[in-house]
Amino acid sequence: MHADLHTTRERLRAGLAGAPAEIEQAIAIAQSPACEHVFLKTRFEAARAEAADGANAARPLAGLAVSIKDLFDAAGETTAAGSVVLADAPPATRDCPAVARLRAAGGVVIGRTNMSEFAYSGVGINPHFGTPANAADPKQPRIPGGSSSGAAVSVATGAAFIGLGSDTGGSIRIPAALNGIVGFKCTASLVPLDGALPLSTTLDTVCAMTRSVRDAMLAHEILSARPLTRSNAPLSSYRLAVPATLMLDGLDPTVARAFERSLQALRAAGAAISQIELPEIRDVATVLAGGGFSAAESYAWHRKLLARDGERYDPRVRFRIEKGAAMKAWEYLDLVVARRAWIARMEQAMRGFDALLSPTVPMVAPLIAGLAPGSERDAEFMRVNPLLLRNTSVVNVLDGCAISIPCQAAGELPVGLMLWHGALHDDTILNIAQQAEAALAPASRDQ
Amino acid sequence: MHADLHTTRERLRAGLAGAPAEIEQAIAIAQSPACEHVFLKTRFEAARAEAADGANAARPLAGLAVSIKDLFDAAGETTAAGSVVLADAPPATRDCPAVARLRAAGGVVIGRTNMSEFAYSGVGINPHFGTPANAADPKQPRIPGGSSSGAAVSVATGAAFIGLGSDTGGSIRIPAALNGIVGFKCTASLVPLDGALPLSTTLDTVCAMTRSVRDAMLAHEILSARPLTRSNAPLSSYRLAVPATLMLDGLDPTVARAFERSLQALRAAGAAISQIELPEIRDVATVLAGGGFSAAESYAWHRKLLARDGERYDPRVRFRIEKGAAMKAWEYLDLVVARRAWIARMEQAMRGFDALLSPTVPMVAPLIAGLAPGSERDAEFMRVNPLLLRNTSVVNVLDGCAISIPCQAAGELPVGLMLWHGALHDDTILNIAQQAEAALAPASRDQ
Repeated sequence: MHADLHTTRERLRAGLAGAPAEIEQAIAIAQSPACEHVFLKTRFEAARAEAADGANAARPLAGLAVSIKDLFDAAGETTAAGSVVLADAPPATRDCPAVARLRAAGGVVIGRTNMSEFAYSGVGINPHFGTPANAADPKQPRIPGGSSSGAAVSVATGAAFIGLGSDTGGSIRIPAALNGIVGFKCTASLVPLDGALPLSTTLDTVCAMTRSVRDAMLAHEILSARPLTRSNAPLSSYRLAVPATLMLDGLDPTVARAFERSLQALRAAGAAISQIELPEIRDVATVLAGGGFSAAESYAWHRKLLARDGERYDPRVRFRIEKGAAMKAWEYLDLVVARRAWIARMEQAMRGFDALLSPTVPMVAPLIAGLAPGSERDAEFMRVNPLLLRNTSVVNVLDGCAISIPCQAAGELPVGLMLWHGALHDDTILNIAQQAEAALAPASRDQ
Repeated sequence: MHADLHTTRERLRAGLAGAPAEIEQAIAIAQSPACEHVFLKTRFEAARAEAADGANAARPLAGLAVSIKDLFDAAGETTAAGSVVLADAPPATRDCPAVARLRAAGGVVIGRTNMSEFAYSGVGINPHFGTPANAADPKQPRIPGGSSSGAAVSVATGAAFIGLGSDTGGSIRIPAALNGIVGFKCTASLVPLDGALPLSTTLDTVCAMTRSVRDAMLAHEILSARPLTRSNAPLSSYRLAVPATLMLDGLDPTVARAFERSLQALRAAGAAISQIELPEIRDVATVLAGGGFSAAESYAWHRKLLARDGERYDPRVRFRIEKGAAMKAWEYLDLVVARRAWIARMEQAMRGFDALLSPTVPMVAPLIAGLAPGSERDAEFMRVNPLLLRNTSVVNVLDGCAISIPCQAAGELPVGLMLWHGALHDDTILNIAQQAEAALAPASRDQ
């Protein structure tokens, strides 16, 4: 894997590299076949000028490359969210807070990344603009995961240090897991949603992918405009648990092996890890029934656009948004109440633990060929997509926070280890993840 | 009008009165014909014991009487919200935060007050338990206003110093105006809604009625558990405005006279009062269409109870709740978006002013006879109820704060002057109201 932002920034500060040269390298990668379909729009000339700007060099992101998902408003650019129906929409008049904060911290936006249309699916296939190939397997094109597909590949290939994205059911963590990088979904309320095209106003989270946990910490501090409470406490000082319900069902052999090996490595580093049942997880299905918040809330947003231009939507996306049309207001309000009650039960059940450990995704990235656009593969898409989202979406319904860190061995396809908890446990999750990343390093990087 | 809480507390502290004697007087009033139908449940013996408790005497409410609307959980009592369908519900296991805070401050709960069934209407008629007569006209029974009907009469007659109630569309301010007392609807988020039977989770506000603005300030400090930022700045230091749109339409002659006279008295006291149009007010109708938040949210709460026991609801209440059955989730979500956009436009338009002034209610209290239960009077009820709610409900949709203070002259039926603004302007509204109350005193009390 390419050096992370911290390492690169240290080299810049030591005079061993320069931001302009780093941007040239990022641009070269962005233009290479590895990044085919990754960017929907690039701004290389502007990026070069910004990287040469001394003011950016002195800031936390040091004039280094970041990418932004096509979901976010950036001044002068159209926000199309991977769709064609919004391709002619007027450009945004200003940066949304997330983009503005990255820029104010010295981040240089290299381009807008591809995504599942309107962020609706965990697979990452885009029938309009092509699907970025997973960065981990140069031999055969595998899905990148989604919806932040281009964001993940931009970070994994080295075209960006931070990939700004969003996570409504796993859209940051799924592609992070499948591409072997770090994806942190913070507590939703910590980063403003303004200027991000909504999928589910209840579940949407603005967050980012990076190549290390320390970069994830820095990115989150910038996006949330607040300092973390950091701790170097060892793994032995935390109470960890692996919940058996739902999240360990039907694991792909590679995932099962990597997950077990990771638990051993964490235990070897001193972690106490309980095996628990956490049967409450099963009831998340009630809160997601009938398409849940996403269908109702996205239908409300898309209704007029669908009436005008529904034929030009990805039919797989349209189908799922239209599930929200029939929901009654009282059913929606019942969901709100059911969610609140479920969160309370989960928080009660998790009270004795600092973090829960689960595989981010139960499978390694499948081949694009089996899921590509076309109605003859729709059934397989409808089988794979909910599986990709199964574990991650639990944390969105929980209003919680979660990080996915790579835990595969060398030579294996990427596997994500998810550390998670309820709302506002962000700092603890990040601190534990940094310890876990170090403990897993021998297994996941150098083996 | 009876002495307010501050005056009485000073008399207690000076040894000129005792809390036990004050409670006896409150009980005597509560048992008198003036309080017929005001209390659904009383607790005189417990109140006597609490008033004699030295610990309560030393607290801010000094062991003095407060009443609580039948909407609030109090340990050991059933919360029936003025209905018969919940009369056999199990008793609450603990005090809700609002009741607990009043008790912790030394308030002695004398009883649970009558209300419009499930808080659904501004008239205050209750077909199950009878309707408390307005305190202002001993000659002929007039409506008390609602939904906090008993709360208002308990405070106006002297059976309680503070009447705990709720305000979703005007349920504190309407009865305060019609009975000639003070009703303050704070910004909804400032007082916890827990343990209050919901009407609209979006619009409900827990708040209180009192006999003076200074008592309203004390009650709000207790209920919100925060100190006010107080100011004795004169009226001349505030920018006030009277919006013409909607709120001045079709005023009853008594209301029109009292309102104009009040503006003159405020100007005479130094106030600068602009006449503005504020046409944005007209658009509140869009956000209230189809029953708005109240119909959808109350239907979600009542659905199962209606299916089981709908025949035993007040048909006028049931009719309005059932309007929420058909609303689609997307229509509800459109309301949420429309409300947010309308609030932003209103806040922009109000930016140059510290408070807006309007008549709380466009009419004086009509006779109960013309609105009493019975389908032959339903049409008149459906005409009067929206008029009562017309001005006050604007502030609920605004997520704002508002106080109603009496502004009629001696010999006139009560008229409320409403001072209002957007969310979190509470302290300023209360400070201005205290100045306004003093400026109006010659006109409204002694004339």
